Amino acid sequence: MSTDRIRVGVLGASGYTGADLVRLATTHPNLRITLMTADRHAGKPMQAVFPHLGPQTGKVDLPDLVTVAEADWNACDVVVCGLPHGTTQEIIAGLPGHLKIADMSADFRLRDTGTYAEWYGHAHRAPHLQPDAVYGLTEYYRDAIAEARLVACPGCYPTAALLLLLPVVGAGLIDPADIVIDAKSGTSGAGRGLKEGTLFCEVAEGIHPYAVAGHRHAPEIEQEVSLAAGREVLVNFTPHLMPMNRGELLTTYVRLSGGATADDLRACLEARYASEPFVHVAPEGMAPATRHVRGSNHVLLQVYADRLPGRAILVSTLDNLVKGSSGQAIQNVNLMFGLPETAGLEQAPLFP
Amino acid sequence: MSTDRIRVGVLGASGYTGADLVRLATTHPNLRITLMTADRHAGKPMQAVFPHLGPQTGKVDLPDLVTVAEADWNACDVVVCGLPHGTTQEIIAGLPGHLKIADMSADFRLRDTGTYAEWYGHAHRAPHLQPDAVYGLTEYYRDAIAEARLVACPGCYPTAALLLLLPVVGAGLIDPADIVIDAKSGTSGAGRGLKEGTLFCEVAEGIHPYAVAGHRHAPEIEQEVSLAAGREVLVNFTPHLMPMNRGELLTTYVRLSGGATADDLRACLEARYASEPFVHVAPEGMAPATRHVRGSNHVLLQVYADRLPGRAILVSTLDNLVKGSSGQAIQNVNLMFGLPETAGLEQAPLFP
Amino acid sequence: MSTDRIRVGVLGASGYTGADLVRLATTHPNLRITLMTADRHAGKPMQAVFPHLGPQTGKVDLPDLVTVAEADWNACDVVVCGLPHGTTQEIIAGLPGHLKIADMSADFRLRDTGTYAEWYGHAHRAPHLQPDAVYGLTEYYRDAIAEARLVACPGCYPTAALLLLLPVVGAGLIDPADIVIDAKSGTSGAGRGLKEGTLFCEVAEGIHPYAVAGHRHAPEIEQEVSLAAGREVLVNFTPHLMPMNRGELLTTYVRLSGGATADDLRACLEARYASEPFVHVAPEGMAPATRHVRGSNHVLLQVYADRLPGRAILVSTLDNLVKGSSGQAIQNVNLMFGLPETAGLEQAPLFP
Amino acid sequence: MSTDRIRVGVLGASGYTGADLVRLATTHPNLRITLMTADRHAGKPMQAVFPHLGPQTGKVDLPDLVTVAEADWNACDVVVCGLPHGTTQEIIAGLPGHLKIADMSADFRLRDTGTYAEWYGHAHRAPHLQPDAVYGLTEYYRDAIAEARLVACPGCYPTAALLLLLPVVGAGLIDPADIVIDAKSGTSGAGRGLKEGTLFCEVAEGIHPYAVAGHRHAPEIEQEVSLAAGREVLVNFTPHLMPMNRGELLTTYVRLSGGATADDLRACLEARYASEPFVHVAPEGMAPATRHVRGSNHVLLQVYADRLPGRAILVSTLDNLVKGSSGQAIQNVNLMFGLPETAGLEQAPLFP
Repeated sequence: MSTDRIRVGVLGASGYTGADLVRLATTHPNLRITLMTADRHAGKPMQAVFPHLGPQTGKVDLPDLVTVAEADWNACDVVVCGLPHGTTQEIIAGLPGHLKIADMSADFRLRDTGTYAEWYGHAHRAPHLQPDAVYGLTEYYRDAIAEARLVACPGCYPTAALLLLLPVVGAGLIDPADIVIDAKSGTSGAGRGLKEGTLFCEVAEGIHPYAVAGHRHAPEIEQEVSLAAGREVLVNFTPHLMPMNRGELLTTYVRLSGGATADDLRACLEARYASEPFVHVAPEGMAPATRHVRGSNHVLLQVYADRLPGRAILVSTLDNLVKGSSGQAIQNVNLMFGLPETAGLEQAPLFP
Repeated sequence: MSTDRIRVGVLGASGYTGADLVRLATTHPNLRITLMTADRHAGKPMQAVFPHLGPQTGKVDLPDLVTVAEADWNACDVVVCGLPHGTTQEIIAGLPGHLKIADMSADFRLRDTGTYAEWYGHAHRAPHLQPDAVYGLTEYYRDAIAEARLVACPGCYPTAALLLLLPVVGAGLIDPADIVIDAKSGTSGAGRGLKEGTLFCEVAEGIHPYAVAGHRHAPEIEQEVSLAAGREVLVNFTPHLMPMNRGELLTTYVRLSGGATADDLRACLEARYASEPFVHVAPEGMAPATRHVRGSNHVLLQVYADRLPGRAILVSTLDNLVKGSSGQAIQNVNLMFGLPETAGLEQAPLFP
Repeated sequence: MSTDRIRVGVLGASGYTGADLVRLATTHPNLRITLMTADRHAGKPMQAVFPHLGPQTGKVDLPDLVTVAEADWNACDVVVCGLPHGTTQEIIAGLPGHLKIADMSADFRLRDTGTYAEWYGHAHRAPHLQPDAVYGLTEYYRDAIAEARLVACPGCYPTAALLLLLPVVGAGLIDPADIVIDAKSGTSGAGRGLKEGTLFCEVAEGIHPYAVAGHRHAPEIEQEVSLAAGREVLVNFTPHLMPMNRGELLTTYVRLSGGATADDLRACLEARYASEPFVHVAPEGMAPATRHVRGSNHVLLQVYADRLPGRAILVSTLDNLVKGSSGQAIQNVNLMFGLPETAGLEQAPLFP
Repeated sequence: MSTDRIRVGVLGASGYTGADLVRLATTHPNLRITLMTADRHAGKPMQAVFPHLGPQTGKVDLPDLVTVAEADWNACDVVVCGLPHGTTQEIIAGLPGHLKIADMSADFRLRDTGTYAEWYGHAHRAPHLQPDAVYGLTEYYRDAIAEARLVACPGCYPTAALLLLLPVVGAGLIDPADIVIDAKSGTSGAGRGLKEGTLFCEVAEGIHPYAVAGHRHAPEIEQEVSLAAGREVLVNFTPHLMPMNRGELLTTYVRLSGGATADDLRACLEARYASEPFVHVAPEGMAPATRHVRGSNHVLLQVYADRLPGRAILVSTLDNLVKGSSGQAIQNVNLMFGLPETAGLEQAPLFP
């Protein structure tokens, strides 16, 4: 293995996003994992925590897990953080200056630290860093990401929502005050922590809404839609928990404005994403399914005319652990280090 | 077994709704199945087509399957039809007059035969019967059902939508012109016919929308909502196919009218269903899940205030094969023969 | 509701077996639940812990959950225990003498308290009660169960294994020293406790063996097979965890003895279970599936000739929460109180 | 894209194995797909048949589907056949001589055409090719594969069984006459054809055995085990259909011979596969799960001592569409063209 690979530290490697980051990084041509932290599992090889990485572990010589306190930051050029929100702020504040940071937590996504405090229940713990944090929705903030030290990668739901909404809001094709987002997510989005609600029997063979009118991804979506709209807007965001491992599908109900039609929305999205490697407008009439993007960094968008006059239905789907988390983090790391943006992200979707 | 049980014929017994009707009828204290048709499987015992009914078959002496042509109508007091739509009209038109009919197909649900022709692609084949058909949403048409010869049991989605919408539309609490219904359904709703789209690998570990802006349950919902609203309305109805066997959950987004609040909607629903045995408003804050009603005739409703001002979120869930089909058919048969409405329908939900 | 119903206390009502016992008991014509304990949830209504029981709770007036310490034993005629093993022994030892007990834990299943200590890691805590405990495999110990104060209901796997093996071992048709049991179980068998291994993402879309050569149901199977064989035998018992809620399927590989054939095994099983209401030998060639018995107290058995000469393959399937636990407990309570054995257990299997 | 890539034709591209071959080939550094046949879908782009390949289709310029009759064989250096068995023989017999062939069907796996006729119900249609066909179990026939024109890739079950059994049979550590293979498979193994038995509702939330004592993979396993044993042997092979898309797990029960222990089996397997890139013996005590290899070409093996004296339990798991089919085909194509054996097969397993 080349010694001039970018050296990556993974903070919080024992969660599902951490594991998927390791999956992607171990087959990336320009990265090398040199540090992995997981406080509860310190001292173990990654294979003991995630046996599916066993064959990779053997091949690429992954370091054993350590605590954050034990981390040798000099071994890294960049850290990717998959820690629970709240904890990340203090740790990042203490990192040496040579390290670049791609944060997958929610800790630096909200530009206004007051909004953070309101939704996360405690004052922001590193407010001095917030002004320099770049919101890591790659397709919209490429230049800033390339220059950033700290990138706050978007949440999985916001990524799926914003890729769909930003172009049509920005072009004035829909009314930003009348957006209803009905989201369906696989269970990996809830993490590997022990909760009764994510036990197999509480999820399989069923569906239910959760965090109705109170999910923390709502203010994140609103922040970016407001910027695109040029005025402050709220959105309806209603997530549902589904019996599948990966994947998110958002069905978004919008009111057309200024005489726009569903065809106009489609044309707008097609134009915006024509040269994007990971964002695709599906052929007309093809129903996007989470299984069409599983395991990949791809996003699939679709537009339908509504039966209700003056309205349209927008659909987006992505893999919450890839484009919704680890994949987008790597996409951003690629930019931060001048690598080809698609490096290490060329996995084809896995179906069935 | 008592000889004065109501004698039931099941037309189309080899589909999932037919099987669930047999499940319920064989433990019903007042019914006896005396005829079952399934053209492709004629000559076989039901156990050969649905092995899970084997133990029941042994116990209650079910008749073997026959073709419709072979059916002895004199052996029945009532027929329950689970045939594909279109075929039912001609068969029902030819039935002897002593038979009562509970039809689970879509063939007599639309009061206007022109609307039927528009959505189902052919002229209605028994238009003379349509005026006498009673729409079988039990909680709304009890008296007419009790007197009817022909009851057109509602579709699964319309049942879930209308139980939620009719009271609040009728009371003028929401704007009937701004209703968005995002529906999620288990795969049994698509039937046992061979279609690539319902193969295990095409459904498992994923979700996708289907029949967007064109599902045949939309005009049925609109018909009844229009009656409640006193004017013609359209609705957005967007179904999704989910990796589960049974169950439907509808998340419905509505605009409040006349200063109503989400609490007013809750109070309206609670009042309307206070004495209903099968329709329940969930305790405030409890997220309804399809698994809470699985296998039972129960329906669970919920109301949430929306984050968007002036809007609310309504949720309903039921088992598409029970209250959404066979259970409601039996509920109606109970009424048609003066039996207790809950007879044979007291199964508790099956969880996990 | 009749006041002369048998009054049932449920100890450990907040687990899956407890919930299924309540499901069955609330539709049982002769039982009434008068006590439910769940230490962590004391003070709550059952609906708060298991929302699917909400509609039942409304109808039959279930008592709220209390701690074991708060339990009013005088309100009960019988207690059914669904507590974790180990804890049950002390609690049962302290119960007043008027109470009959159907224990669903493992605490009194092993006739030899030394074997208990060896497999469960601590000395038996109520060894004086063990001699009076009757092993509650209903089809084999009916008379003793009817007379017993304390019935130790078998584990789910032993029930499935023994119904298959006892007749053919007893008749000398197979070699008891060469029995291999490959078991596949749904996840509800692992309970509602928080364990990483039963999170949705750790179970869905996969299968793996567990507790290989060390599962605690092995000595229980061996105890009863040894009695039938008239000599001490060991068995191979290898369970696998599967992505389904309910159900167990055992594929058992046996060596024929004394010139017996697979047909002899079938004849033996058919003769043994001809008049049993819940145990059925499937028609020849029909593959038994867990979905054929889901939600019901039925057991399905099958026999195949093996491709290896002198061997046969036996299959059994049941619902681990019903015949494998709560259903068999109720079957035994019926016997203990002179009720019809099938009372309250006539649910048909739920498919799909 | 380099013009000196190996040009690959895919026959039968509209099945699941065909799709997975395309998934792997489109990210392979040395292959280029230049022909894809699918008679029923001729004229369509691959994306219309498998939407998940849409993003790939856009990127690598896949040819549209054609019929076999329309195929331009001159556009290919090698064809990979994913056709239903029986049809492949005639087609392959008619291929021009410059083409190499990796066949994923069963048509050339059985060295004895009489055995083929017995199990597949018709005389072999290209018996003159059989002597030159090389059995494509890569780890055992590398040299012959590298020289072969026609490679008969093994079935998914035989691959999983033989990697486990061949070393220990060959070393005389187990009795080849007493092998019981209990197999559990995901549903993609049954293909994309329309069959009632693979509808979602017939598979989800359940398990059942199928083709007991009569599965066509039995003679294939027996053929190779017999060669290793130096005498003809039969095996018990009992497959089960499971509610998952991909993956196979085989739990194999064996009798030790010559005083061997489970540790000896482990040592034998570890030695045999120490330098294999895709076959791994799991750390002692770690339960292999299908999810540990999902989407990858890896195989995981495990050994357990049995509770029955003188016996052991062997477990193997692989992804039926990768190492069990398309991945092994590519591994063989790599060998046939002198490419690195792991080229294009370095995907890490996808979990969750």
